[in-house]
Amino acid sequence: MGGSLGLALASRAHATVRGYDPDPSAREAALERGCVASAHDTIAEACADAELVVVCAPVAQLPAAVAATVAAAPPEATVTDVGSTKANVVRRIDGADRARFVGGHPVCGSEARGAAAARAELFEGATYFLTPVHDTDPQRYAQVHAMVTAIGSRPVAIDPVAHDRLVAMTSHLPHVVANLLASQAGSGTIDGHDPLAAAGGSFRDMTRVAGANPRIWIDIFLDNRDALLAATLEHRRRLDDVISALEQGDAGYLGRFIGEAANARRRTLDAAFEGVTGDLHVVRVHVPDRPGAISGIAQALGAARVNIEDFVLHHISPEQGGTAEITVAGTDAAARAVAVLDEQGYGAIATRLVPGEENSE
Amino acid sequence: MGGSLGLALASRAHATVRGYDPDPSAREAALERGCVASAHDTIAEACADAELVVVCAPVAQLPAAVAATVAAAPPEATVTDVGSTKANVVRRIDGADRARFVGGHPVCGSEARGAAAARAELFEGATYFLTPVHDTDPQRYAQVHAMVTAIGSRPVAIDPVAHDRLVAMTSHLPHVVANLLASQAGSGTIDGHDPLAAAGGSFRDMTRVAGANPRIWIDIFLDNRDALLAATLEHRRRLDDVISALEQGDAGYLGRFIGEAANARRRTLDAAFEGVTGDLHVVRVHVPDRPGAISGIAQALGAARVNIEDFVLHHISPEQGGTAEITVAGTDAAARAVAVLDEQGYGAIATRLVPGEENSE
Repeated sequence: MGGSLGLALASRAHATVRGYDPDPSAREAALERGCVASAHDTIAEACADAELVVVCAPVAQLPAAVAATVAAAPPEATVTDVGSTKANVVRRIDGADRARFVGGHPVCGSEARGAAAARAELFEGATYFLTPVHDTDPQRYAQVHAMVTAIGSRPVAIDPVAHDRLVAMTSHLPHVVANLLASQAGSGTIDGHDPLAAAGGSFRDMTRVAGANPRIWIDIFLDNRDALLAATLEHRRRLDDVISALEQGDAGYLGRFIGEAANARRRTLDAAFEGVTGDLHVVRVHVPDRPGAISGIAQALGAARVNIEDFVLHHISPEQGGTAEITVAGTDAAARAVAVLDEQGYGAIATRLVPGEENSE
Repeated sequence: MGGSLGLALASRAHATVRGYDPDPSAREAALERGCVASAHDTIAEACADAELVVVCAPVAQLPAAVAATVAAAPPEATVTDVGSTKANVVRRIDGADRARFVGGHPVCGSEARGAAAARAELFEGATYFLTPVHDTDPQRYAQVHAMVTAIGSRPVAIDPVAHDRLVAMTSHLPHVVANLLASQAGSGTIDGHDPLAAAGGSFRDMTRVAGANPRIWIDIFLDNRDALLAATLEHRRRLDDVISALEQGDAGYLGRFIGEAANARRRTLDAAFEGVTGDLHVVRVHVPDRPGAISGIAQALGAARVNIEDFVLHHISPEQGGTAEITVAGTDAAARAVAVLDEQGYGAIATRLVPGEENSE
């Protein structure tokens, strides 16, 4: 994350980026990749003339790292961080220093680590939470806000405790559940069959983050324990309601339950696609497993001036190829896509995107 | 499903397909689209000279539809079905008819309905469960098995009750959980913030099937109630263990829990990619939101003889574009992909695919 931010700040905000890392080889790699213009042996040296200092450290080390940085940086420097949880970091800052610290959390990120995996584009279009508190200096807040927009992210100001409750529900609980589903399906065979061997696309989607880096996630789960416990207990309460409905064969309850979920799914897509959801279509097409097959499809769509909103390849096998699901906006674009793909012998089918109807088996 | 099967049987198995549907307009549409060579007013007429009869009906109507078909079809005809659950269907068949009925369940399928959405390729590479029982005539089983391989699916024979337990765990429970996560996150605001508005890619992945067609899924949940209840109670037991670990701050437990999930995720990918997982790399590249952008990338990879194993576009916004995650097999292919994309100014990064490290925020 630090490496990507360095690249983004240099290329987008035209900032001079100086770096410190406790690991000399990480300093060297960051320098080599251009994530920092200069690498330093101490925090104080790296921060000497800084206007803005960004602390990037694993969640467990973050409060101490932020406290050390606030102590080492000159009083003019504004300090921010990029941790996945915010309450404990903000709580750690005392007295006058609270004016110049603004907590931050960019909601992006693969866990690929190190300067070699850094990308300036990582932050583009991502929600970037900022957690100013009562004592925060508004000028300092504006400064961090400007950095966030400069790297292409969308700043969202939120109370640090509310932030942790929100990510517990939308990120940490889903990680727990993905781990649960994967562990349960992987825990044994059923009548000699390995459930994982025949799992369909919906299972693969739901366990995509299962097993995510334990070095990172144990700390996130424990750091955000209170909010995660609250979200998990709420999940269990809702699970118990579904269990009762199943025991009673209550079709009405199940219908309302699925209806609520459909509504939430629609709002999630609306947020991701900024209001065009009602008009999205999915074009499905078979893709043979050979070099150039996807480019043939993408090229045909480009030539027909069809803009690809989303593209998922459900790879099946080297012998059989896979199915591409291409999302396009508008009935016209969908019709053009089908026509041009049919022309090329692909046999495409377009259907209106209805929440939950993608890839359900 | 019936329409796609008709197309697949005609084009792949060179079969003459006759169809019956209680709805005259569905019969007409199937005929027009070429899903059937002829459409008939009664089951008996459609089955008159049939070697093989495939019953496609919603889960709730399926046992009755199969029983009616077995009664109407000539004794020489083998009967099979494509329902998502198997125990209740198989249980419904009596006496001598048990020899000539073979339950089936292709694990593929979008829920897009009707002849207009039919695709012959739907079955390619999919697991196709067959549920012969003690009384099944081996010749009849071989006949259905041959149909399954002819349309490109992989037949897996399994006991009908074991089948229902297996899909409860890998499909029906995941659907319940997707609905739960979506409903919970959509049930209100946190300090004025809508959790759905700022949800990241992991949440979108995990709620992809949330809200799936209630007409279909209420019936599946209720038809497979016993197995789904058992899987859901097991899920709750495992959830309780995680809750205890969180309450006790048990990092060791959480580490083992995530480790188990990582192992299961790796096995899921192995099954999907047939053993090449260890060597998979993800190439990440920024994609501007304009026609032709994806084709430029795919074309460059095709020219470099890089085979795309999987392709996911995380679309972010019309202004910012999105990030493509392109999965390729082998260190060499990954290096070639990065080189050719760098040459075109895309700034690609390749990392080895480690389970759970894709798209985690």
